[in-house]
Order: sequence, then structure tokens, then C-alpha cells
Amino acid sequence: MRIDGTHYRTVWMEGDRVRLLDQNRLPFELRVADAPTHRETAEAIRVMTVRGAPAIGAAAAYAVAQAFAEAPAADPWPYAREARARIEATRPTARDLFAGTEHVWAAAESGDGPPAEAALRAAQAFADASVESCRRIGEHGAALVPAGARVLTHCNAGWLATVDYGTALAPVYLAAAQGRAAHVWVDETRPRAQGARLTAWELANEELSHAVIADNAAAWFMSRGEVDLVIVGADRVAANGDVVNKIGTLGRAVCAREFGIPFYVAVPPSTFDPSTPDGPAVTIEERAEDEVHYQEGPDAEGILRRVRVTAPGSPARNPAFDVTPARLVSGYITDTGVRPGGR
Amino acid sequence: MRIDGTHYRTVWMEGDRVRLLDQNRLPFELRVADAPTHRETAEAIRVMTVRGAPAIGAAAAYAVAQAFAEAPAADPWPYAREARARIEATRPTARDLFAGTEHVWAAAESGDGPPAEAALRAAQAFADASVESCRRIGEHGAALVPAGARVLTHCNAGWLATVDYGTALAPVYLAAAQGRAAHVWVDETRPRAQGARLTAWELANEELSHAVIADNAAAWFMSRGEVDLVIVGADRVAANGDVVNKIGTLGRAVCAREFGIPFYVAVPPSTFDPSTPDGPAVTIEERAEDEVHYQEGPDAEGILRRVRVTAPGSPARNPAFDVTPARLVSGYITDTGVRPGGR
Repeated sequence: MRIDGTHYRTVWMEGDRVRLLDQNRLPFELRVADAPTHRETAEAIRVMTVRGAPAIGAAAAYAVAQAFAEAPAADPWPYAREARARIEATRPTARDLFAGTEHVWAAAESGDGPPAEAALRAAQAFADASVESCRRIGEHGAALVPAGARVLTHCNAGWLATVDYGTALAPVYLAAAQGRAAHVWVDETRPRAQGARLTAWELANEELSHAVIADNAAAWFMSRGEVDLVIVGADRVAANGDVVNKIGTLGRAVCAREFGIPFYVAVPPSTFDPSTPDGPAVTIEERAEDEVHYQEGPDAEGILRRVRVTAPGSPARNPAFDVTPARLVSGYITDTGVRPGGR
Repeated sequence: MRIDGTHYRTVWMEGDRVRLLDQNRLPFELRVADAPTHRETAEAIRVMTVRGAPAIGAAAAYAVAQAFAEAPAADPWPYAREARARIEATRPTARDLFAGTEHVWAAAESGDGPPAEAALRAAQAFADASVESCRRIGEHGAALVPAGARVLTHCNAGWLATVDYGTALAPVYLAAAQGRAAHVWVDETRPRAQGARLTAWELANEELSHAVIADNAAAWFMSRGEVDLVIVGADRVAANGDVVNKIGTLGRAVCAREFGIPFYVAVPPSTFDPSTPDGPAVTIEERAEDEVHYQEGPDAEGILRRVRVTAPGSPARNPAFDVTPARLVSGYITDTGVRPGGR
């Protein structure tokens, strides 16, 4: 991924330090956060300096490697065990986080050299595999993006949500690299506005044509023939193909079918959850009302301000995700190819 | 309509002054604007101190009455003619505005007493008829609102958009008056957030159960069986029944049909436009990008701040309205009864 023309990953290691693009400050400030020990890396996961399942997984893998490096070489296990518990407590519902810690732990236990060295190699391999997985999602998905395609996306499933490339945006980036630059309609994605903030910022850095739209405008552009395909990411795909993703995804899927527009879900392997039979089996997290009541951003002087955007005293409801039934999905873009959906 | 327990209209006359609830400051400050002459009333229309077609119509009617009162009694016509042009130039696409000026002008010309007196009587009658029309929309629509109904609405088509009662919310208010209090899901209605600001504020003042939701959450609540009916207003209804209304209406209509939820459009007579054959014949206004880029509201100290909510440098697109085809409309709630839609 490019920022001001320089190549970055979302999270990486330099010596024994983990470095992360601070996503709480984007897009208004570009800051690279520095996590010298596993404790700071765990804290970065907890406060969402890093977000997006694959990126969290890589950060967690690096954090376990840091813990083994910090631990007494003679017997690293008690220290590492405590550290792992600390890391896994940061975002206990993030499946990729556990995949990251488990992968590094298993390597340390394998006896293939000193635990600290094996852990570091495994963490690096985990991050690299995550990048490669996204690149292949991009390659398979790019075939669905013709020259001049107008792609609508929701939330942020771009490189900021992964270690590199992204999921939903990877096809757009790979198509552009192959000479087929798309135009991207970026749903604002209230209440947290990840589209308006993060996806728009990514696309500007990649110098791709795009426009932020109010979530309300998506159906209108679809109905006018100004959207060629929809690509979104997913937080979880159930065994029957139902998709749990950011609130608003369901409405886009219903409208995409109404207006005859393909609706794709781009997903890394870890997002498929065979233990969840279907969407209705998932409990949807309801987050704090204040995400609806307040918005934050810089004022004219560049000072970050938090303002009330709803009538004072009125209550709000804030489901964070919704469930899109498999029957509304045209296909799943995976790192092994495009699987047909139920539509 | 009630504010802190006191009955108000959105616009009214006191002596020769027009008074208006300043909607640019709501819900964060309740201020009654004072327009001593037709010039200030025209300016109030122009800067959207008053908004909503019926309320604009009444304000314009009052402004013409003011102009006749200000004009030389011996020959009021040159002054009144210039004033009328000034008033009609404020919001030239608002049909109700012209209905208001025309009605008052015709009364002044009728010879039924001095023009100034006839104009004032006509302006008052125009406003009263507008209130009565909304009340009857409410009566007819109330029959569709059973006890405990969960009604979803979009934008603000409540009493603030009319002289009193509202259109989409009139059925909710009348049902409540009949002892059947509904719960109202209030779409935030980005980019201008009229739902979160105005509709929520109205409902709080009427002490009705409600919750603001991100526009993205509407489809999810529908899919869960938590919405019994949708009622929206309209800016224009074409001859074939297509509905031009606030951006986002189309997406709600598509999802309402998908999930088997009735979708009603509440409309005063002036909103039916037989000269527009269908929705595609309407040019949709695209408003300034900055409505998407910025949001305004009070900070923790109550100071109104305008903050950037999109990535700096990214462009936006901002269609203000969309077209809902008649085939997605269950019915039109009018002041003469509920007409069937095309669904």
C-alpha cells in the first residue's frame, strides 16, 4: 500500500519493536505508533490503533513474538503464557487474533530452535501469509473488475483493515495494477464513518478515482445504472453462506439485487466460520449510543472536536453489524477463487 | 404541536409581524425569529429559517400580506408586485411557495374590501387550511397505526415541515391522541440529519417513544421484524405515482418490500404534480459536497462547531433527493383518504 508514494504495511516489526499506523488518528493525522514490548502492542489492539481482523491477527502474532523475546531465555513459558493471556483478552471476539497467537505459540513449542527465534520467524511468516492471502483475493477478484468499472464498497475492507492489499478493495487495487482503474463509490458508513475516513483516504493515496456518498445515496446511484458491482468485506461468513458485516451491508445487498447489480463478499480464509450454522445464530453486538449521537473531526483550525449531531435527550439504537442472507450474495471472492453465492 | 408543553405553529402572524421557529438552530437552541416586514420574511424563507413545503407556503402567503400592509393604500400594486417577485425568488423550486403567494394575491385583487385586509384574511385562511389538511392526513393515516406499532420514518415530515401536525408524522400524532402511542424509528437522514435533529426533537417534545438510528440500521431492524410500517413524506408525487423525496427514501422502499413491510407516503394535495409524468422526468438536485464533508453540532461546552467527517482531499457526491417508483409504494395517505399505491 502507498502513502504519499511510500510503501507501507499496516503493522510490521522493526528490530524488537512493533510499529503500527495509528488508525484512530487517520485520516486527519498520519502517525506511526511504536510498541516496544508486547504490552504496548496488546494495548494498541485494545484501543483500536490497529483494526480489521487480519491486521489484528498479525499484530497479535507479533506481540507473542515480542513476549518470547522479553521472557527469560532459560524458561520463557510462564512469562509467555501470562503475556498470551493478556494479548488474547484485548479483543476476545476477534477470531484472527487467536489464529495469530496460536500460530506463533505452536512454532515456539515446536522445538525448532530457541522459542524466541522460532516465534519471531512464525510471526513474520504469519504476516507474510496474510499479505499473500489478500493479494490472491485481489487477483481472483480483479477479473470481476472491467476497465472503467464503478465499484461500490461499504465500510473499510481495504489495506488498513489487513496487513496489506485489503479484502474488498484488493480486487480494485490489483485491477488498477493491471491497467484497469475503477471508480469507487465510498459509502460514508455511519455511525463510525470508516468509509468516509479510511477507505476514502486509502483510495486518495492510491490515486484512484472515488467519491464519498451518504449511505442514503447508494440505492439511488444503483437505480441509475451508475454502479457496476458491489464488493464488501465480512466479519464472519456462516456455514450456510450468510454474511455478518458492518451495519448497512444488508441494505446494499437488497438494493443490489433489486437493481440487478452483482454483490460480492471478499473474505480471507479465517473469516469462514463452519461452527456458525447461519446468520440468525450470530448475536449482533449493539454498541454505545454515543457513536450515533456524536461525530468527531477537525474544525477549521485542525483541532479535533466532538460534536453532538442528534437532538439532545433523544435516545439512539446502534447495532454494529447486520446479517446478509446467502441468497443475496452473488459470490465470495476468496484466495483460492470466486465461489458462487446463493443469488 | 407541543414544545415544552406549549402549543406552537411553525410560522404564524402576530400583528403585522411574522414569527417563525428558527429551524437552523433547532434542536440545539429554540429561538422564535421575528420578521417585521415582508423583506425579513422572504429572507427567512431564503436562508431556511423555515423549511418544508407547507410551512414555506404559509410563510410566503404571510409575506405577501405584509407587503400589502406596507404598500401605499392609494395604490399598493407596484410595491406589492415588486415584493411578490422578491418573495418568489427565494426558493424558486418550491411549488407551495407559489400556491401561497398566488392565493393571497388573488384575494387582494378580488375587490372584496381593501387589498391589505383581504390579503391578511387570505394568508390566515391559507395557513389554517394547511393545518386542516395535515390534520386530515393524520386522521386517515392514524387508522394504519395500531396500538404499539413500530413506525420507521425518514427525514423530517413532521410538524416542523408544515404549519402544524406534519405529514408523515401526522398519523403518529393523531394515533397517539386516540390512545395508540407508537414507537418511531428515526432515520438519522445524512447528510443533513433532519431525522436526528428535527424529527427526534419533535417526538421528544410530544413525549413519544423513539430512537434515532444510523441510516444503515433501517434494513436490519426491518429484517428482524422490528418495523411494522414505514411512513415518509414527499417533495413531489408524479402523475404515475412515482415519489420524489429525500435521498435514502428509495433504499427504504426497496427494503420494506423485501421484508413485507407496508410503505406509505403521506402527502398534502399540493405535492401531487400532474404536470410531471413520472419520476425519471424529474431532475434531481445535487447539492454542495460540503454537506457530506462537514457536520455541525454543539461541543461539550455547547458551542456550535463544524467538523470535517470525511478524509481531507477526497471528493463527495451529494444527490439531495431520489425517486421511489410507484411499484414500491403501498399507499398514499392524503387529506381525503388513503389511495392505493402500485405495490
